[in-house]
Amino acid sequence: MTLPVTQMRIPDAEFKARSAKLLDHIRNLDARGVVLFDRDYILYYTGFAFIPTERPMAFVMNLKGERGLFVPRLELEHAQSNALIERVDHYIEYPHDPHPMHKLQQMLFELGVREHIAVDDDGYPWILGYRGPALSELTKARVTHVRGFIEDAMMIKSSAEIALIRESCKWGNLAHVLLQRYTHVGATETEVSDRASREATYAMYDALGGLYRAQAGLGMGGGASAGYRGQIGRNSSIPHALANNITFQPGDVLVTGAGSTIWGYGSELERTMFMGKPGDAARRLFDHMMTLQELAFDAIRPGVPCSDVDLKLRAYYEQHDLMGNWKHHVGHAIGIRYHEAPFLDIGDKTTIQPGMVFTVEPGLYAPGIGGFRHSDTVLVTDDGIELLTYYPRDAESMTIQ
Amino acid sequence: MTLPVTQMRIPDAEFKARSAKLLDHIRNLDARGVVLFDRDYILYYTGFAFIPTERPMAFVMNLKGERGLFVPRLELEHAQSNALIERVDHYIEYPHDPHPMHKLQQMLFELGVREHIAVDDDGYPWILGYRGPALSELTKARVTHVRGFIEDAMMIKSSAEIALIRESCKWGNLAHVLLQRYTHVGATETEVSDRASREATYAMYDALGGLYRAQAGLGMGGGASAGYRGQIGRNSSIPHALANNITFQPGDVLVTGAGSTIWGYGSELERTMFMGKPGDAARRLFDHMMTLQELAFDAIRPGVPCSDVDLKLRAYYEQHDLMGNWKHHVGHAIGIRYHEAPFLDIGDKTTIQPGMVFTVEPGLYAPGIGGFRHSDTVLVTDDGIELLTYYPRDAESMTIQ
Repeated sequence: MTLPVTQMRIPDAEFKARSAKLLDHIRNLDARGVVLFDRDYILYYTGFAFIPTERPMAFVMNLKGERGLFVPRLELEHAQSNALIERVDHYIEYPHDPHPMHKLQQMLFELGVREHIAVDDDGYPWILGYRGPALSELTKARVTHVRGFIEDAMMIKSSAEIALIRESCKWGNLAHVLLQRYTHVGATETEVSDRASREATYAMYDALGGLYRAQAGLGMGGGASAGYRGQIGRNSSIPHALANNITFQPGDVLVTGAGSTIWGYGSELERTMFMGKPGDAARRLFDHMMTLQELAFDAIRPGVPCSDVDLKLRAYYEQHDLMGNWKHHVGHAIGIRYHEAPFLDIGDKTTIQPGMVFTVEPGLYAPGIGGFRHSDTVLVTDDGIELLTYYPRDAESMTIQ
Repeated sequence: MTLPVTQMRIPDAEFKARSAKLLDHIRNLDARGVVLFDRDYILYYTGFAFIPTERPMAFVMNLKGERGLFVPRLELEHAQSNALIERVDHYIEYPHDPHPMHKLQQMLFELGVREHIAVDDDGYPWILGYRGPALSELTKARVTHVRGFIEDAMMIKSSAEIALIRESCKWGNLAHVLLQRYTHVGATETEVSDRASREATYAMYDALGGLYRAQAGLGMGGGASAGYRGQIGRNSSIPHALANNITFQPGDVLVTGAGSTIWGYGSELERTMFMGKPGDAARRLFDHMMTLQELAFDAIRPGVPCSDVDLKLRAYYEQHDLMGNWKHHVGHAIGIRYHEAPFLDIGDKTTIQPGMVFTVEPGLYAPGIGGFRHSDTVLVTDDGIELLTYYPRDAESMTIQ
């Protein structure tokens, strides 16, 4: 017998509702259908996860709402197993002869997607050695870009998406606890990060069992992870430094990063930690960073433009003569991409709305002293925010003796 | 005193020679300069490695050969440390106000890059929430795409590039040896892959010390690694299956993958392995796969079109009634991308030339029996090939007791 089993993934009805909204938009544009090449968009509309390579893939939907996937032979069974897709067309191989795009042209013709086509890109992007014609060239159709519409749609997370982000926070939290536990003077960044990430990942696999899929996008990684990204000691004042294998030393100021990917969805948890009691200069910057983050938590609420949050924090940086230590905006949205729009930035006028999920991570960077940044993932609610990450933030908890 | 220290990276003179060739091409096109946004192309021409995000970056070169990088404030020091770049322009933050692209427009104006510009893309790609104008829109210049020229240039590897690929093969070999050593009935894919990858990576870090940088592109990962990508037992007939946490069982047919990234360059080593002596059906397919790979080794030589190699193997598949087990072409080039052009595929008419580096990986896939694929990385020499990977290939060596 088939038992009704708990599922963690986005329900089929939600994928259908997303497609229905896209279809409305295409009708309003007077286009005859849509072709999407972007891996994240295809995941968003179908739940079909794949790794983009030189072998082109596409999602197609016509005005009847019929949905199709265009895939290489290599991905055929994988695509056919997706219950939301009415039709899977495949080509033999890339580059092959004739070029796979001729097969896509045929598929579009059969589905009545012609003359005016909504697209995310005018052709498959030239990645990993792929070369091919623009869709407009191939089909002689007019193309209209709908990336903006899709990005707007993806900004508001559903309750199912929020549940996955919440779950992601848990396993990121575990990875971070282990990272902090294993960090000590003389240990190397690599061994500590690897051990914490490995143990958290195994625990997650064992706890979630068959409920779990990673479906991780590029740059996200499956499982859970925590690490330092080279942001140790003097390097901690360089954000996004690439990881090197560094040994922890007394007096280091550390900036961490942790997260996990659950059915494609991620979260972000970052902390500033001290190897031993911080000096006065470091403690002063840490305290300012905490105040800045709290100002941001307070400023994020529905109806406010994203830019306002950044402007309020800029005013604080200026009042306290900290613009010399400023390097980046307050935060960004997060979901199936580890960064996405909107941005908590003076240039982003998007109105904050319930269901948006942001990282909040104002930073201070001082050469010779260190980098100071916590990042928390927050959900916008009807009247403010809820912190989805819940790791301690205070200096005492962040000090490794 | 400054001591002359051995270096592993591509010499500056080679980056300069690459740029000089690109400059010649731009002059021939009658363009006034070039703008590149692609991370891999920027690495190829400057040695500057970065992770692409919503914050746009670009490489610019004008007709005088002056080279510039356009970066966010966050990457300024990193860009300035590159000795090959005459000029670094930066913007404060993305999206900010005004949009960063206005700053790029100013930079292009000052460098005299206008009216007709060679590009890899007409504007920064819309990734991770980035939105912005096309370069042609912004500058009112005509743009000419030069991806094809760059891809052609990247096909022929220099001796310095080949040395890095050779080095990559070594650490991939170590990771694979450990993978095979730790694989046993009852162990899980994840623990075995993690342990092998971790130990190989640590050994590599310790052996190469300060000579090493990963500079790994998207999808490549730093360090060394070996794993199964879910290609275990019944799943081994699905190429490129996403990893799941599976337990090894007697009779499994395994398909592995191993490699490492050294200063951006990778290699590919894959093996078919058996958990215990294979049955007749499995052994028969394994032997055909070995013959196919040897046919390919023999067919790859300078002056031959890539398509010929694939055609020869297709003939073998057909003669032996194996087209039902065929799923993909013979192989692809490899370098700073884990797949790149040209392809050993009936649709690729590129002439094979000395200095090209290919993976050779014809496969056979039989549901219920397994997947059968070795992948070796080979260098095209003046009169044939040299195998850069040197892991055992025979069935006895590939059988885990």
